[in-house]
Amino acid sequence: RSHIAQTRSRGSRLNIIIIAEGAIDRSGKPISSNYVKDLVVQRLGFDTRVTVLGHVQRGGTPSAFDRVLSSKMGMEAVMALLEATPDTPACVVSHSGNQSVRLPLMECVQVTKDVQKAMDEKRFDEAIQLRGRSFENNWNIYKLLAHQKPAQEKSPFSMAILNVGAPAAGMNAAVRSAVRIGICQGHTIYVVNDGFEGLAKGQVRDTLGAAGHWGASISQSFGRLQAYEGVLQLVEARGQYEELCIVMCVIPATISNNVPGTDFSLGSDTAVNAAMESCDRIKQSASGTKRRVFIVETMGGYCGYLSTVTGIAVGADAAYVYEDPFTIHDLKANVEHLTDKMKTDIQRGLVLRNEKCHEHYTTEFLYNLYSSEGKGIFDCRINVLGHLQQGGAPTPFDRNYGTKLGVKAVLWMSEKLQQVYSKGRVFANSGDTACVIGLRKKVVAFSPVTELKKVTDFEHRLPQEQWWLNLRLMLKMLANYQISLTEYISGQMEHVTRRTLSIEKGF
Amino acid sequence: RSHIAQTRSRGSRLNIIIIAEGAIDRSGKPISSNYVKDLVVQRLGFDTRVTVLGHVQRGGTPSAFDRVLSSKMGMEAVMALLEATPDTPACVVSHSGNQSVRLPLMECVQVTKDVQKAMDEKRFDEAIQLRGRSFENNWNIYKLLAHQKPAQEKSPFSMAILNVGAPAAGMNAAVRSAVRIGICQGHTIYVVNDGFEGLAKGQVRDTLGAAGHWGASISQSFGRLQAYEGVLQLVEARGQYEELCIVMCVIPATISNNVPGTDFSLGSDTAVNAAMESCDRIKQSASGTKRRVFIVETMGGYCGYLSTVTGIAVGADAAYVYEDPFTIHDLKANVEHLTDKMKTDIQRGLVLRNEKCHEHYTTEFLYNLYSSEGKGIFDCRINVLGHLQQGGAPTPFDRNYGTKLGVKAVLWMSEKLQQVYSKGRVFANSGDTACVIGLRKKVVAFSPVTELKKVTDFEHRLPQEQWWLNLRLMLKMLANYQISLTEYISGQMEHVTRRTLSIEKGF
Amino acid sequence: RSHIAQTRSRGSRLNIIIIAEGAIDRSGKPISSNYVKDLVVQRLGFDTRVTVLGHVQRGGTPSAFDRVLSSKMGMEAVMALLEATPDTPACVVSHSGNQSVRLPLMECVQVTKDVQKAMDEKRFDEAIQLRGRSFENNWNIYKLLAHQKPAQEKSPFSMAILNVGAPAAGMNAAVRSAVRIGICQGHTIYVVNDGFEGLAKGQVRDTLGAAGHWGASISQSFGRLQAYEGVLQLVEARGQYEELCIVMCVIPATISNNVPGTDFSLGSDTAVNAAMESCDRIKQSASGTKRRVFIVETMGGYCGYLSTVTGIAVGADAAYVYEDPFTIHDLKANVEHLTDKMKTDIQRGLVLRNEKCHEHYTTEFLYNLYSSEGKGIFDCRINVLGHLQQGGAPTPFDRNYGTKLGVKAVLWMSEKLQQVYSKGRVFANSGDTACVIGLRKKVVAFSPVTELKKVTDFEHRLPQEQWWLNLRLMLKMLANYQISLTEYISGQMEHVTRRTLSIEKGF
Amino acid sequence: RSHIAQTRSRGSRLNIIIIAEGAIDRSGKPISSNYVKDLVVQRLGFDTRVTVLGHVQRGGTPSAFDRVLSSKMGMEAVMALLEATPDTPACVVSHSGNQSVRLPLMECVQVTKDVQKAMDEKRFDEAIQLRGRSFENNWNIYKLLAHQKPAQEKSPFSMAILNVGAPAAGMNAAVRSAVRIGICQGHTIYVVNDGFEGLAKGQVRDTLGAAGHWGASISQSFGRLQAYEGVLQLVEARGQYEELCIVMCVIPATISNNVPGTDFSLGSDTAVNAAMESCDRIKQSASGTKRRVFIVETMGGYCGYLSTVTGIAVGADAAYVYEDPFTIHDLKANVEHLTDKMKTDIQRGLVLRNEKCHEHYTTEFLYNLYSSEGKGIFDCRINVLGHLQQGGAPTPFDRNYGTKLGVKAVLWMSEKLQQVYSKGRVFANSGDTACVIGLRKKVVAFSPVTELKKVTDFEHRLPQEQWWLNLRLMLKMLANYQISLTEYISGQMEHVTRRTLSIEKGF
Repeated sequence: RSHIAQTRSRGSRLNIIIIAEGAIDRSGKPISSNYVKDLVVQRLGFDTRVTVLGHVQRGGTPSAFDRVLSSKMGMEAVMALLEATPDTPACVVSHSGNQSVRLPLMECVQVTKDVQKAMDEKRFDEAIQLRGRSFENNWNIYKLLAHQKPAQEKSPFSMAILNVGAPAAGMNAAVRSAVRIGICQGHTIYVVNDGFEGLAKGQVRDTLGAAGHWGASISQSFGRLQAYEGVLQLVEARGQYEELCIVMCVIPATISNNVPGTDFSLGSDTAVNAAMESCDRIKQSASGTKRRVFIVETMGGYCGYLSTVTGIAVGADAAYVYEDPFTIHDLKANVEHLTDKMKTDIQRGLVLRNEKCHEHYTTEFLYNLYSSEGKGIFDCRINVLGHLQQGGAPTPFDRNYGTKLGVKAVLWMSEKLQQVYSKGRVFANSGDTACVIGLRKKVVAFSPVTELKKVTDFEHRLPQEQWWLNLRLMLKMLANYQISLTEYISGQMEHVTRRTLSIEKGF
Repeated sequence: RSHIAQTRSRGSRLNIIIIAEGAIDRSGKPISSNYVKDLVVQRLGFDTRVTVLGHVQRGGTPSAFDRVLSSKMGMEAVMALLEATPDTPACVVSHSGNQSVRLPLMECVQVTKDVQKAMDEKRFDEAIQLRGRSFENNWNIYKLLAHQKPAQEKSPFSMAILNVGAPAAGMNAAVRSAVRIGICQGHTIYVVNDGFEGLAKGQVRDTLGAAGHWGASISQSFGRLQAYEGVLQLVEARGQYEELCIVMCVIPATISNNVPGTDFSLGSDTAVNAAMESCDRIKQSASGTKRRVFIVETMGGYCGYLSTVTGIAVGADAAYVYEDPFTIHDLKANVEHLTDKMKTDIQRGLVLRNEKCHEHYTTEFLYNLYSSEGKGIFDCRINVLGHLQQGGAPTPFDRNYGTKLGVKAVLWMSEKLQQVYSKGRVFANSGDTACVIGLRKKVVAFSPVTELKKVTDFEHRLPQEQWWLNLRLMLKMLANYQISLTEYISGQMEHVTRRTLSIEKGF
Repeated sequence: RSHIAQTRSRGSRLNIIIIAEGAIDRSGKPISSNYVKDLVVQRLGFDTRVTVLGHVQRGGTPSAFDRVLSSKMGMEAVMALLEATPDTPACVVSHSGNQSVRLPLMECVQVTKDVQKAMDEKRFDEAIQLRGRSFENNWNIYKLLAHQKPAQEKSPFSMAILNVGAPAAGMNAAVRSAVRIGICQGHTIYVVNDGFEGLAKGQVRDTLGAAGHWGASISQSFGRLQAYEGVLQLVEARGQYEELCIVMCVIPATISNNVPGTDFSLGSDTAVNAAMESCDRIKQSASGTKRRVFIVETMGGYCGYLSTVTGIAVGADAAYVYEDPFTIHDLKANVEHLTDKMKTDIQRGLVLRNEKCHEHYTTEFLYNLYSSEGKGIFDCRINVLGHLQQGGAPTPFDRNYGTKLGVKAVLWMSEKLQQVYSKGRVFANSGDTACVIGLRKKVVAFSPVTELKKVTDFEHRLPQEQWWLNLRLMLKMLANYQISLTEYISGQMEHVTRRTLSIEKGF
Repeated sequence: RSHIAQTRSRGSRLNIIIIAEGAIDRSGKPISSNYVKDLVVQRLGFDTRVTVLGHVQRGGTPSAFDRVLSSKMGMEAVMALLEATPDTPACVVSHSGNQSVRLPLMECVQVTKDVQKAMDEKRFDEAIQLRGRSFENNWNIYKLLAHQKPAQEKSPFSMAILNVGAPAAGMNAAVRSAVRIGICQGHTIYVVNDGFEGLAKGQVRDTLGAAGHWGASISQSFGRLQAYEGVLQLVEARGQYEELCIVMCVIPATISNNVPGTDFSLGSDTAVNAAMESCDRIKQSASGTKRRVFIVETMGGYCGYLSTVTGIAVGADAAYVYEDPFTIHDLKANVEHLTDKMKTDIQRGLVLRNEKCHEHYTTEFLYNLYSSEGKGIFDCRINVLGHLQQGGAPTPFDRNYGTKLGVKAVLWMSEKLQQVYSKGRVFANSGDTACVIGLRKKVVAFSPVTELKKVTDFEHRLPQEQWWLNLRLMLKMLANYQISLTEYISGQMEHVTRRTLSIEKGF
């Protein structure tokens, strides 16, 4: 195809063509990998190799997301059965916007059939729509990035991208997609070294590498709570400095998942998986040892997300977090629970502890308490996961998520710019021109930093409300504590006010 | 083929057929995966899927072994150049028995050509021989395990397998191959739960699961230094208890690589890779942060192998180990080195510390020293890798190594049994009937535990001499310390007395 | 007097003459200090100064002994009242052999009158007897030491004094009195530098400073449990080494009071007073601060004596010791007790913790627990008393006690020597020739080290039974815990089997 | 005398009459204690007891002040000898305003003779003058307090006394004398509970115990840096709140001696003595142990005064303080020094460490460093003195000092009040009406808090310049480090700019 020839002519030395197992052409004929290979070799004369992933895609350790998802859906299925009456129609347990939901079975079957029918009838666009909003969304973004074309004319706008704080997995994907889309739209894109400090010092270059004079109009920052705090300060200083009346967008990227305005920050999925893998190994190390309890310390600042979600993924016996205060009474209960458990077949325990969950009940403290009260029944070991939670290759989720956030952020900024552009000058002074982009339930949302200020606990660097707290009861139930389903449901309800039971076609 | 049909008929539900890219049949015709698939489907009627691994095999992070190997060979190459005179014949730098060696280029080329010629002329056995002893060895073991047949007649011997201490990666492979070969040879194989304690309590079962009365003759234990110590005690008690006059073989399996009688213990490669991956992530976490030094604590008891080899693999600035004593003078030098380094482009430091390297210079101590003396130049963070070094999936090396050790151990025991069997009774009382199996330079060797006792530092659980200590100078050179090549070479020579420069065809 | 003139003529430059306030001469005439001064000046011509101690003797901080004594007697008095019926004769609460006792009031009054009457009638010896055995004892030892005369003839025996372990207050007094009495009895006295090690190396000198050849017969060692253990080993080796068939006596001297065979070891009173004074100061430091709890760590190895007795003397809220095991349940109860207490007027808390009372419930642990559970109600501070408990000037009790033990030990050894001396040679091989001297209830007792072995917990360096454990309930009652008197009494009874209610005239 | 009769008639039950050994009456006749006793018994009929302190006053452990003083004067004497030429007149080394000084011998002798002559000629007032300003000062204050008379008429002024922060030794003396003098002058005196907080809440009572309405005019606060900071804030708020235009005086009272405006804060002498006694005991505990180094942690916040002065008093080998920065280089030098020292006769070491002297070189760090580098040569122990440095009975110096500061503060306030009183109203708005009272060199000085602000390091709670830093070189010299006298003198000169060599008649 000409697309490949083009990229080669621009100097690229490598192309990857991905073909789905069931790929068909417009006439319904299967497209095999060998067919494509022959095509490329014959038409373009490029050296081509085929890899058939096959069952390589099936095996392997399940990701943290898959583990938590299956736990949630299993719980929901049990609840559905318990609540069912003879008249309840059959349902499918599904997941939408971080919540398990029940969908009428018949409706789901019908949708599946409709998709197939549309495919058979070659109504491809319709088939895509029937697959749901999320699928459509992904398809559109793929097309946008894969078939991007250089802008026909230069836009009057410049954008600068700056990274604030430690790196987080998925940021490269976000920067790449943002730069691509930005260029396609004709903007001049600058990158800033060294965050706000670099910006102040003028360490700004355009994407072609030339030192830039960023005299213009748009900032976009990635990063942790610091980025959000920084943008908030800039916005609050707009009254004094007109130069700050530009459009700004924060892409939240931190392993801690503690940025208000989004359910997930970029990089937190990778961190959860890294922590999970480490816990898997730690548990495995005890397979020959009988009766051992591990206390594992995770990162996350005051935010217990990493600890809680990892806890569910690895089946932890407890996960101590700052948001769910505990006293010596709770610690005693946990120790007694483990002592009982050790009398059964399962003779290993795993307890997670968020690094800042308690000023005095340190990891050392827990070790001493567990060692002493478990004496003669189990022994205890400490592991502090440390910085390996921050590094590592991004998970598919974080790569996809980063790509999408990059695209959406630039599209939103372009739109806002048009709105505030007048007489050859950008003047953005309303709150809604400085936002945090994020995923809220099923949709990508833009929340003005000035609004988020009201719902942020700045001292502990936490949003005042966090959706994932409703997972804690599940963690406790799964750890076999004596929690009745009624408690569970009412506990859920505290956090979850609405739960939609319609067919979701989310992000 | 009948082999597959057979295993299926015995209940197996899954077969894996591996076909090399360049596989040919006896007539020289290529064997493709699709050809095999068609064959299986048509002849046997089994559902068959093809996966073409292709370039999946090429990418990925290099293993610790590959990193250390390339470091060693690079060093050797530089030394070869420095030592070369106009008359020195061209050489190839290669690796044999844990040492870099130089082989005459022409000789190597000739061997390669000979292999190809033998293949072309269908002298396959000869071709295999020309590939070297290690290749031939692997091929023989593969054949033994893949084409094993149940023994025609029962042997008079029983063997028991027991695991002592914490699990180590690769042990499952070793147990599997030992059991298979043992059964093929007609022995009765028992497994023991819970190590020596279980043996004492009679927690013994045969491989068919029946509770066994192990009234017989052969023990084989896996495990760490404890296993070796245990067997040593049993041997020393032979005078008092005739029941202990049996053949015993220890397969050293521990992440610490501290068992005398072998250059590598099973599981240590997996541990090094686990530590390496964690260090990779930790380093990556600092990619946005400027000027940070990580102090990473590794396991290994008093043995610095894990720390040293991981240090080379990740390019550490220092690796503190017990075997290489250090004082405040050395610590000061390291800190000053890092301070200088931070003034260059590379602004990250990584320092490894073996858990028991020093009674007083703890990880906390190093943190305080580095933090204080580096003040204003770099900051410092601690990571304690912990038990994740013990768990995890075994590396290919450990799986292969385990398989080989299992096979060789059983073969050796069978042979010894024949020797000490007389008048219907096993009576093994010479020292060479209780050995540690291990890899010593290039060969699998069996060392009597009574001999090893003389070269063991029991207090610190270390062999008195350790081959890998000669890697420490390399580590220091690679960390850019001011060590001259002359020092390096003489340092090497302290440890390495002989270095063979002939073509090696090892293990 | 000629006595003073004599000591002067032997080179002494200082004499101290102590005159009791009510001193009378044989004719009943008062002896005033000025009278004595004039006498000395006129008769001997020495420069003489008078100091009248007066009320200096009355004030000051009460000693630990006095504080504990008054606590015990107060408790006993309350119990006496509670148990009293109309028929119970009036009693005096007194103290005998570490126990509070009740003596009939009339009897006590009568004894007092008898003393006065004997004095009036100049029956001085009888008066002394009526003052009780302890008084008589002290008087005799004073006379022995003050009026000692060099031996008329040399005895055939030599004695060596060696000190084992750290110094303890009062040892100098013991050595001084032992040497004096030994010389008076005509023995040759050697001193050994550096304990058993010095003895082995021959670092022996006689009391005149000449390097000695100690080829003889008697050892006497001071020290801690090590001394006792050392002598035990020597005794057990008597079978092999005839040289060890000598008479040996251990004077227990250690701050820990953990030597079997005595209720008090020399130096423990000084240590208790040192700890008490430090606690007094610590409490005082909080007088301006409201609501603070101090956790104070004391020495003593595994022995909780120092901690418990200091706790009673300073009114501690708790004293954690190894001998009285505790769990998280007890810790919780203590914290809750303090929380309640802080709501009353007394807003300070003091908790003692013996250094080895618990492997896991360290001082740091307690600090964290108290700080956390007391949050908002009180804050918490740690103090580790450390080595200042070992130093300091000996208390009057330890000086007196040391003097007596030195005298009694030498007298006992002289007697034993006579018994085992035969044909010009000492041959001591029975168990009762190697003893620990000590105070048991009211009497000085000599316990064979071989007997004591049976009642010693060598691992924890503790006697298996310790009399002071019955003080712990008192400590808890005084700390206002909800312990009923009935519990207290039955608790007492566990430890105390006999309690004599007769008039005691003890040590 | 009528004075005693009077105090008795006012309810006092105890009088103490102190008579100097050489006391004479106006006619030169000696006054003996028995003479006074007889007088009191006969004339007043009170029960009277005599105590003759005699040599009780001579013995005992020297105070910290005496130890430091003798060290300084010894150093000065050596320097005087080294600097002397044949022409240098003989001199006496004395001490004035924290400095050693040299006075001409002949002049001193003359003054002594003059005093005697004045006494002989009954020119008592002149004799007092000749004894120097300090003597005269003390005499006047004694007379003021002993012979105080209730004021004839009420003054229009009220004073309130409040205590800020933790208590310090000597404060009671200061409050007592301030209240006495205040009442004598006719002022109404209030006391405030709970410092500034209590003042805000109105917890004010007058000295007769009645809850007071302190609607008036004068504050006086005692306390630590907080008191000074508090008063500074009040002064800075005078512009807004006219009520704050009152006269204020801070009496600095803290063990840390870190208040600007005075060379000594009340309580620091007691703390130094407490720390010194503890160190004495710690050293003593090692008298039987060979080769031990103690690391002793003292209080003082960032201020190294306590540590340095205690170090000199106990002959410490080093005293680490915040004001005298040190690196690993210095630590190494100290360890090497101790290693050398252990090879001599003195085999004990003592190292002091101020609690906040270094962020990273903690007490634990030093312990590890010393233990490791001293291995085989000496062992090491930690002691943390803790809160016992804050408590304890005040030393004579602190009692006297407190008494004087209380008197002088009230006299100064009375004077200031007169100045700012006009038209029935106190209006104090100049800087010199809010002062810190203190001893600066030899005189009691009043420094406006607004002036002191400029010379205070508020972050570390330290005066920017501290006179005692010149003692550090002496400490190092006395510890036998290789410091030449020249260095010492030039080091001195850095701190000390002027040194007066005239006859001082100081405070």
